[in-house]
Amino acid sequence: MPGNSIGTVFKLTTFGESHGVAIGGVIDGCPAGLKIDTEKVQNDLNRRRPGQSAIVTQRKEPDTVEFLSGIFEGLSTGTPIGFIIKNANQKSKDYSHIKYTFRPSHADYTYSEKYGVRDYRGGGRSSARETACRVVAGSVAKQLLQDISITAYVSGVGKLELTKPYHDLDFSEIEKNPVRCPDPSLAADMESYIKKIRSEGDTVGGIVDCVIKNVPIGLGEPVFDKLHAELGKAMLSINAVKGFEYGSGFKGTTMKGSEHNDQFNQDGSTKTNLSGGIQGGISNGMDIYFRVAFKPVATLMQKQTTLNQQGEMVEMQGKGRHDPCVVPRAVPIVESMAALVLADYYLLNKISKI
Amino acid sequence: MPGNSIGTVFKLTTFGESHGVAIGGVIDGCPAGLKIDTEKVQNDLNRRRPGQSAIVTQRKEPDTVEFLSGIFEGLSTGTPIGFIIKNANQKSKDYSHIKYTFRPSHADYTYSEKYGVRDYRGGGRSSARETACRVVAGSVAKQLLQDISITAYVSGVGKLELTKPYHDLDFSEIEKNPVRCPDPSLAADMESYIKKIRSEGDTVGGIVDCVIKNVPIGLGEPVFDKLHAELGKAMLSINAVKGFEYGSGFKGTTMKGSEHNDQFNQDGSTKTNLSGGIQGGISNGMDIYFRVAFKPVATLMQKQTTLNQQGEMVEMQGKGRHDPCVVPRAVPIVESMAALVLADYYLLNKISKI
Amino acid sequence: MPGNSIGTVFKLTTFGESHGVAIGGVIDGCPAGLKIDTEKVQNDLNRRRPGQSAIVTQRKEPDTVEFLSGIFEGLSTGTPIGFIIKNANQKSKDYSHIKYTFRPSHADYTYSEKYGVRDYRGGGRSSARETACRVVAGSVAKQLLQDISITAYVSGVGKLELTKPYHDLDFSEIEKNPVRCPDPSLAADMESYIKKIRSEGDTVGGIVDCVIKNVPIGLGEPVFDKLHAELGKAMLSINAVKGFEYGSGFKGTTMKGSEHNDQFNQDGSTKTNLSGGIQGGISNGMDIYFRVAFKPVATLMQKQTTLNQQGEMVEMQGKGRHDPCVVPRAVPIVESMAALVLADYYLLNKISKI
Amino acid sequence: MPGNSIGTVFKLTTFGESHGVAIGGVIDGCPAGLKIDTEKVQNDLNRRRPGQSAIVTQRKEPDTVEFLSGIFEGLSTGTPIGFIIKNANQKSKDYSHIKYTFRPSHADYTYSEKYGVRDYRGGGRSSARETACRVVAGSVAKQLLQDISITAYVSGVGKLELTKPYHDLDFSEIEKNPVRCPDPSLAADMESYIKKIRSEGDTVGGIVDCVIKNVPIGLGEPVFDKLHAELGKAMLSINAVKGFEYGSGFKGTTMKGSEHNDQFNQDGSTKTNLSGGIQGGISNGMDIYFRVAFKPVATLMQKQTTLNQQGEMVEMQGKGRHDPCVVPRAVPIVESMAALVLADYYLLNKISKI
Repeated sequence: MPGNSIGTVFKLTTFGESHGVAIGGVIDGCPAGLKIDTEKVQNDLNRRRPGQSAIVTQRKEPDTVEFLSGIFEGLSTGTPIGFIIKNANQKSKDYSHIKYTFRPSHADYTYSEKYGVRDYRGGGRSSARETACRVVAGSVAKQLLQDISITAYVSGVGKLELTKPYHDLDFSEIEKNPVRCPDPSLAADMESYIKKIRSEGDTVGGIVDCVIKNVPIGLGEPVFDKLHAELGKAMLSINAVKGFEYGSGFKGTTMKGSEHNDQFNQDGSTKTNLSGGIQGGISNGMDIYFRVAFKPVATLMQKQTTLNQQGEMVEMQGKGRHDPCVVPRAVPIVESMAALVLADYYLLNKISKI
Repeated sequence: MPGNSIGTVFKLTTFGESHGVAIGGVIDGCPAGLKIDTEKVQNDLNRRRPGQSAIVTQRKEPDTVEFLSGIFEGLSTGTPIGFIIKNANQKSKDYSHIKYTFRPSHADYTYSEKYGVRDYRGGGRSSARETACRVVAGSVAKQLLQDISITAYVSGVGKLELTKPYHDLDFSEIEKNPVRCPDPSLAADMESYIKKIRSEGDTVGGIVDCVIKNVPIGLGEPVFDKLHAELGKAMLSINAVKGFEYGSGFKGTTMKGSEHNDQFNQDGSTKTNLSGGIQGGISNGMDIYFRVAFKPVATLMQKQTTLNQQGEMVEMQGKGRHDPCVVPRAVPIVESMAALVLADYYLLNKISKI
Repeated sequence: MPGNSIGTVFKLTTFGESHGVAIGGVIDGCPAGLKIDTEKVQNDLNRRRPGQSAIVTQRKEPDTVEFLSGIFEGLSTGTPIGFIIKNANQKSKDYSHIKYTFRPSHADYTYSEKYGVRDYRGGGRSSARETACRVVAGSVAKQLLQDISITAYVSGVGKLELTKPYHDLDFSEIEKNPVRCPDPSLAADMESYIKKIRSEGDTVGGIVDCVIKNVPIGLGEPVFDKLHAELGKAMLSINAVKGFEYGSGFKGTTMKGSEHNDQFNQDGSTKTNLSGGIQGGISNGMDIYFRVAFKPVATLMQKQTTLNQQGEMVEMQGKGRHDPCVVPRAVPIVESMAALVLADYYLLNKISKI
Repeated sequence: MPGNSIGTVFKLTTFGESHGVAIGGVIDGCPAGLKIDTEKVQNDLNRRRPGQSAIVTQRKEPDTVEFLSGIFEGLSTGTPIGFIIKNANQKSKDYSHIKYTFRPSHADYTYSEKYGVRDYRGGGRSSARETACRVVAGSVAKQLLQDISITAYVSGVGKLELTKPYHDLDFSEIEKNPVRCPDPSLAADMESYIKKIRSEGDTVGGIVDCVIKNVPIGLGEPVFDKLHAELGKAMLSINAVKGFEYGSGFKGTTMKGSEHNDQFNQDGSTKTNLSGGIQGGISNGMDIYFRVAFKPVATLMQKQTTLNQQGEMVEMQGKGRHDPCVVPRAVPIVESMAALVLADYYLLNKISKI
């Protein structure tokens, strides 16, 4: 399984199971001399942390990142940045209800079949807990990217959808509500809806949008590693993601070329931006924006009939504390994955011409 | 620009500009002993070829693949399979209208800015002509995958959308009409619509769906290289693609977990398949299905005002013969990219357990 | 600096500075279902540990490996195996003599120039302490390789050289003396010589030989990744290594083809083995053997005149406890690097034909 | 077999069998805007060409490189540079003597065993003909490296050895004699010796030295990808190479640290250069020098008893025209491999600090 790394020259490798000793990662290729503010990293991690509000899982995980290498006297040294996050919940839990049981629409069955052996505790490696490591690395990547701003927010919870275009939104509202939706009124509706869903022992899906500003022209590597292709892969690699679109996306398929083409201004910018800031896989300096679809969390606090390892149909019920809707905590993860992709291309672009 | 390869152990590298001497590629990692039917490869290439019907570009390109290495007496030898496709159109063309001009919503501007130099002839490297090489390699990959069937088809042209689920469609209809839509009546409407669009000098977007059957359980490499993440990247790397969704996709975001979860049958299959055949990034043996969004082609046969390299606004009009709608010819490309991804994971899966 | 990984499908990434919090690594791609004996890993680590005998550095480092992930109930799970080794010596040391001073023939100067910043404590990342992580991973790789035996030993210390061919040696003698030379009488001479060198505050170079038996036919990937090329790279990546030769090596250059060719036996084995078990970059089933040249350790307990960061010539003297000769402790490192290379090719070979 | 590429950001992939249609390669990652002199490339290729003198193989191969992409109006465009060299000898030859026979100390047997199928014509992929593609790419790499000079020469043929250090040699003599040894008198002896060996139907080994001047400080990526480790791998990947040493090499193992350490001058250069221009895997600005050991060519014009595919011992005799000593033609190959490694690190070094 060599699939635990992302990036070419700014590369993250993660390890760790949900309820093992620790999760962690290695950032290889961070240029030397970068001032790394580890508090900012912890802050981003706190935005992803369980228990941060009433509408997310109430699990207790302090999620404190410990840097082990690669930073000396506040600066990156050019050597790999190793880090771990200890697991608070690693012991003494009762997993008997999932030990031999495959939860519906979970990775339990596929991991068992693929590997023949499985760490069943809390989903093991397939748990979204792994994304905490992505946030650590993404937060370092953000610091490398400096002027480039990456802002994600919730634009959909179930059927409640934010329809305003991003430039009509006030991004300073995002972190003011637990849903992380920049429209306060809609955010309140979403919050109520998530609470209702949770009270039913159910879950619901949602959408995260992301906008990237101040992108230099030239990021992206044709032809297979187009900027949006790598962004898409990075987003689709987040747990529960079912779709990705950028710029005009699926709606763009219904348009004519005469409507869809972005006309140039004399300075190289474009009058419209249906392209989503990327042409031919390379950033054109306009805002990059994309949308990420998250399915409803599969673990329900309801009874479900399911299969066990003995091939029997059994009843099971979710235990513990799970997210009724994953998108509020997914916001910093989406930002982090975007930052990782951009950091890689930012460095590669420095060597694209002599 | 190290972005011209895809795959880890079954790896394709492509090269070539639209109007250079030739385009080509190298398939590295094809296992030895595979009987390679080069006629099948040429047939797939013909499905992508210009001039195949009245609704695609009328350019003349025979697109004949020449294999240079790696196949001996009909069998792959385990050494790299090199191939080229000579360009018929490489000479004596008039590019004066695009030489110093950036076509709107094209890669002209971003290539110029990124590289400082650009082969302007027919779009150079950014031309979709490069995808012919993907079809060659994808066709070889299909032969490696044997029982796995990969079928793509057009499900949308502009606002004309195929709404039937794939299991209600007759796939044998696909190649019977030039649109490659399995619903004959809708296909006829789409064909008329594309002709109308072309007569206006305009273009239109569309959607390609893909269904993969007989997938073994276990394909995919968590966590960054999830099967659907790599499929998504592969699709997004095709020219003009703006979005990708698999399984329930964006619609799944509006559902509750209790509706969305796929309940197990006793044999490990599931009663529904909103997961789209993949759980936790690993195939579960159910059909994989996904949708790919294509924007309208940017080259119009209408006048457009645009920017030139001197920073002046100029009028330009598309010349030559272009596709009014890209999706009919995109069908074999989507299949090929899927095959390339699956071939890589098919091999990797053989070494996932001892 | 993306140079902290080795391997394609069995991949090790290491991190950590000599006197940071911890060093560690991630093994990605270990197949699931491998019984991992962590005591064996610790035993290999003990063979590399400082303070193990009178002729190595007397530094105190317990070098206890802690596995953080990827092993569950004694078996590899197919997920990345993360591990750390805490640094005992990380605090309160006096580095003032090297903080701004470049030790001759050390990496101090080149790291400073390349990165502009440097963790000067104990050599930071350039310290051979990093190789402890290689031993951990190599020991896991050995367990994957099962019947393949990898045996390294000291064949040279300064001008004292073991001239007997490996098949005339008794490998059971290797671990019976602190030099790890299989010839007991020569080992005693080497031991005395190293003690004399140390008493002079000096150091001396040496040679480590390695023999690999029971190698399956077919390991190695032509053309750039030939088995011996990757073995050579792996050995040359060990601190202080200046040369690598396999089979007939440099001596083979003086021979005629009629002397050098290995004649076949009827079972495919060869009468001689000047090829060193590899032909065309692929193992042929005969023993693989190679030699690795180590220069004398650069840190002396003598006064040296050297350069500091201010561009001044200054006097310095090594402090602390250093190895007078590196080869006894290099033996498990050489074995580990060989195991890592073989494990990668062992897995790749499973997918070389259909 | 994913082993046909070398490099990370300046990457070469080669393909092609000795007697197939063509051999070729793809250079991916050459920065845009490089003026590429294709005549220089052909000149380097001519230095490797068969038939260039009386002491090399008299095969007729024009070895004309054809560039297919990536160069436009004399400049690299940042897109992959594809090229082919057609094989002159591809047809109508009699291979019956080797079709089912394994030549001693050749790759015939290992390829057969590994892949189960083999292109036996002229050695197929295992032929040194593949190195022509390395020379093409290496020659492009040299042009990227500009001021860095890479000079290889023959320092040993059989027991005839050049013992003078490289700074006492006149490099302008190298190309004046067919052996490519910078000492004219020794070159004459070597030439006579090679002729004698050839008249006996025998072959002989040799050594190629390489010196790299004007190297910027900072090339190399610790810890696994040390500059000398990658150089070593690149050299060991050349056909017939059995060993590699740099700086003091194997002789350095007999020295004391007090003799071996290179003392600094005040400008950062060193008084001696036993380090060979590399410390801790990173170039220090001093000359890099290394030696490469080549075994005698395995194909003899004498009768040999060997094994065939049916497991029978048979007599065989080499046919055709082979090199009695490979080192004269290996000189440009060694230079090219060095250039490829340096080009990769040259680009990577641009992103090692912010």
